[in-house]
Amino acid sequence: MMRTRPLRVALLGCGVVGSEVARLMTTHADDLAARIGAPVELAGIAVRRPGRVRAGVPEHLVTTDAAALVAREDVDVVVEVIGGLEPARTLITSAFEHGASVVSANKALLAEDGPTLHKAAEKHGADLYYEAAVAGAIPLVRPLRESLAGDTVNRVLGIVNGTTNFILDRMDTQGSGYAEALDEATALGYAEADPTADVEGFDAAAKAAILAGIAFHTRVGLDDVHREGITEVTAADIASARRMGCTVKLLAICERAADGRSVTARVHPAMIPLSHPLASVHEAYNAVFVEAEAAGQLMLYGPGAGGSPTASAVLGDLVAACRNKLSGARGPGESAYSQLPVSPMGEVVTRYHVSLDVADKSGVLAQCALVFAEHGVSIDTVRQQGKEGVAGDASLVVVTHRASDAALSATVEALRRLDTVRGVASIMRVEGE
Amino acid sequence: MMRTRPLRVALLGCGVVGSEVARLMTTHADDLAARIGAPVELAGIAVRRPGRVRAGVPEHLVTTDAAALVAREDVDVVVEVIGGLEPARTLITSAFEHGASVVSANKALLAEDGPTLHKAAEKHGADLYYEAAVAGAIPLVRPLRESLAGDTVNRVLGIVNGTTNFILDRMDTQGSGYAEALDEATALGYAEADPTADVEGFDAAAKAAILAGIAFHTRVGLDDVHREGITEVTAADIASARRMGCTVKLLAICERAADGRSVTARVHPAMIPLSHPLASVHEAYNAVFVEAEAAGQLMLYGPGAGGSPTASAVLGDLVAACRNKLSGARGPGESAYSQLPVSPMGEVVTRYHVSLDVADKSGVLAQCALVFAEHGVSIDTVRQQGKEGVAGDASLVVVTHRASDAALSATVEALRRLDTVRGVASIMRVEGE
Repeated sequence: MMRTRPLRVALLGCGVVGSEVARLMTTHADDLAARIGAPVELAGIAVRRPGRVRAGVPEHLVTTDAAALVAREDVDVVVEVIGGLEPARTLITSAFEHGASVVSANKALLAEDGPTLHKAAEKHGADLYYEAAVAGAIPLVRPLRESLAGDTVNRVLGIVNGTTNFILDRMDTQGSGYAEALDEATALGYAEADPTADVEGFDAAAKAAILAGIAFHTRVGLDDVHREGITEVTAADIASARRMGCTVKLLAICERAADGRSVTARVHPAMIPLSHPLASVHEAYNAVFVEAEAAGQLMLYGPGAGGSPTASAVLGDLVAACRNKLSGARGPGESAYSQLPVSPMGEVVTRYHVSLDVADKSGVLAQCALVFAEHGVSIDTVRQQGKEGVAGDASLVVVTHRASDAALSATVEALRRLDTVRGVASIMRVEGE
Repeated sequence: MMRTRPLRVALLGCGVVGSEVARLMTTHADDLAARIGAPVELAGIAVRRPGRVRAGVPEHLVTTDAAALVAREDVDVVVEVIGGLEPARTLITSAFEHGASVVSANKALLAEDGPTLHKAAEKHGADLYYEAAVAGAIPLVRPLRESLAGDTVNRVLGIVNGTTNFILDRMDTQGSGYAEALDEATALGYAEADPTADVEGFDAAAKAAILAGIAFHTRVGLDDVHREGITEVTAADIASARRMGCTVKLLAICERAADGRSVTARVHPAMIPLSHPLASVHEAYNAVFVEAEAAGQLMLYGPGAGGSPTASAVLGDLVAACRNKLSGARGPGESAYSQLPVSPMGEVVTRYHVSLDVADKSGVLAQCALVFAEHGVSIDTVRQQGKEGVAGDASLVVVTHRASDAALSATVEALRRLDTVRGVASIMRVEGE
């Protein structure tokens, strides 16, 4: 049954993920061969600095000439785990032009340039797989692209960034402030030296764009994703969430409008009830809720990052790409036939938790309530309390019913203009109810 | 791009699932066509009693001659949602012989005859998909067969039967007895008039066999699965679990031995800690933990049964089968190359909760502890208490460290022979720690 010539794989990048891919391909070569139907071997490993190659990586395969490696005639599949836009984009494009299929873990590139890459893959009859680009080992791209291919996805709501979940979890369970929790995340290796991509929500936004695109069969670019990070989440917000029976999570939310005619994609911190399954996602774990018309509510949970989990996702895709190479088939390509418009954030409808610093005198509550009413934002609950140690100041916490983001923003602007409102301490959306 | 002749589907069975498949194929025809690359239409619907066809099902397609339907030359894919061994097996086999691919939701048949069906599919170059056979809409077969195709699965542990989870959940949250909870499940439509397949664990065992086969690339038959149902779970067991910080769930557990050289598959009620994610799976929901070498711990959660969720899984498979038909490709076939032996239950190693009715006199605990020690079963905790209203009787609850099932069974046999042991009230495994 097994053909003689092995399938040959070019590995681009040999960091945490790449070295684990190389290791697993070597130690599990027999299993991979049995599952693919032909042996699979590494043709070369492109790195930037050859001196830095990790233990266990076959040194004779290491090269710094990535461009030459992807252009080799004998390469069947290119595995790209470099990350970033360039040179990854150029190398992947060249791989397609030379007839290779590509397995990528590159969320930034996929979110930025997915349609172009898919088109190049299709033109050259090659595959583009990218399960590892979203939520590590959690099967998410394949279930959305294939398992739910006969269903209508209405909502994807998830924790897709481990670093920020670790920080928020620490703030919640240990009462740490943001800076302290970030320090701990850095010390434990959950946050990078420059944590911007994670804490400002860029990483989660890229994943949201990818997930929304697949879920809604619509192109969703990075610019279409409303993005807020967690740097402004305070211990007071978390405490306030607790008082409401909630916790704070950085959520990626992709929704189809109620009329089905448009979609939205956003990333921001939000309060969710402690009874919601996502509230129990601790440490650096990821979990994604998918709501589909026929399937109902599904949740997929697991480690969202790390060398081994990401390598697992890469290898799953590698097996698929190799099997397709053998049989002359192609996996699913881009599916963007729906071309639904992506609505701006102002049209998103949800609930809000608004915390105001106000003067502690009679009539303030009535005054504020009037402003909400004037903007058509209905109040669910309101809590007023004197601020410890600050005579004459009070805190007013309002939780609204569902309202549009535009209406809420207008309300907050009007509140800011009131003499009795000293400041808007925080605005946070309430989700998952 | 789109070819003219539509792909044609024969639907076998038009009950809760079948009618929903027919409805979704009609209402979502445009989406399915766009995702497949060609229109897809129903060629015929085989039912046993034509008078019973549900509203919305196109009557002119209904036939009672299933054999003729699957033999039609123009049928590309047969969807089998009849259930049971016959006539499903004969019809599926005929479908393959006539060149059609098959999508089946039939766990009993897949568990009983999977290898034969896979062989027939392969011989005729057809596909056999069966996501709907295990845990309804939860993507499980595809993630195991494809997403984790490059990984080594060590353990699958899950709640795969909604009826029994509903009953145990009611017993736990409302303090109901088994009979009362079963009555409620029946009244609400969660249990069938004859609940044997569910409550005796046959349904879960079939799913365990299927999951173990895929996870370990090894044929696992129904006879290989150790099976215990929930009919003997008492309110006292649930209360005892609570005292230990646990709840009781019917679990399907497929494990690779520590040395990797054999596997086990079993279905039985077990205590799991309340902190375990599976403990939070309520009502008729299903959830499956998958532990893989590189991926780590994944959990997949969702509705495990019901017409719509099962139809969602069927349609996902239908899209895949149709896409393959168009491109001349084949999806993954059976992968049983590992051929690992399936060990008997006696070799399973886990912890046990043993509840004994004993004479309330000094020395009984020492006597019992000696029996455990003699059989090499180490005791973790022991709790002794007088039985309410029964003078001279006491209850002894022992929780063991990890021991083999054989050693535990021998221990219990020896305990039964003690004069001071009036009876063994219950034995339950403790999992998920």
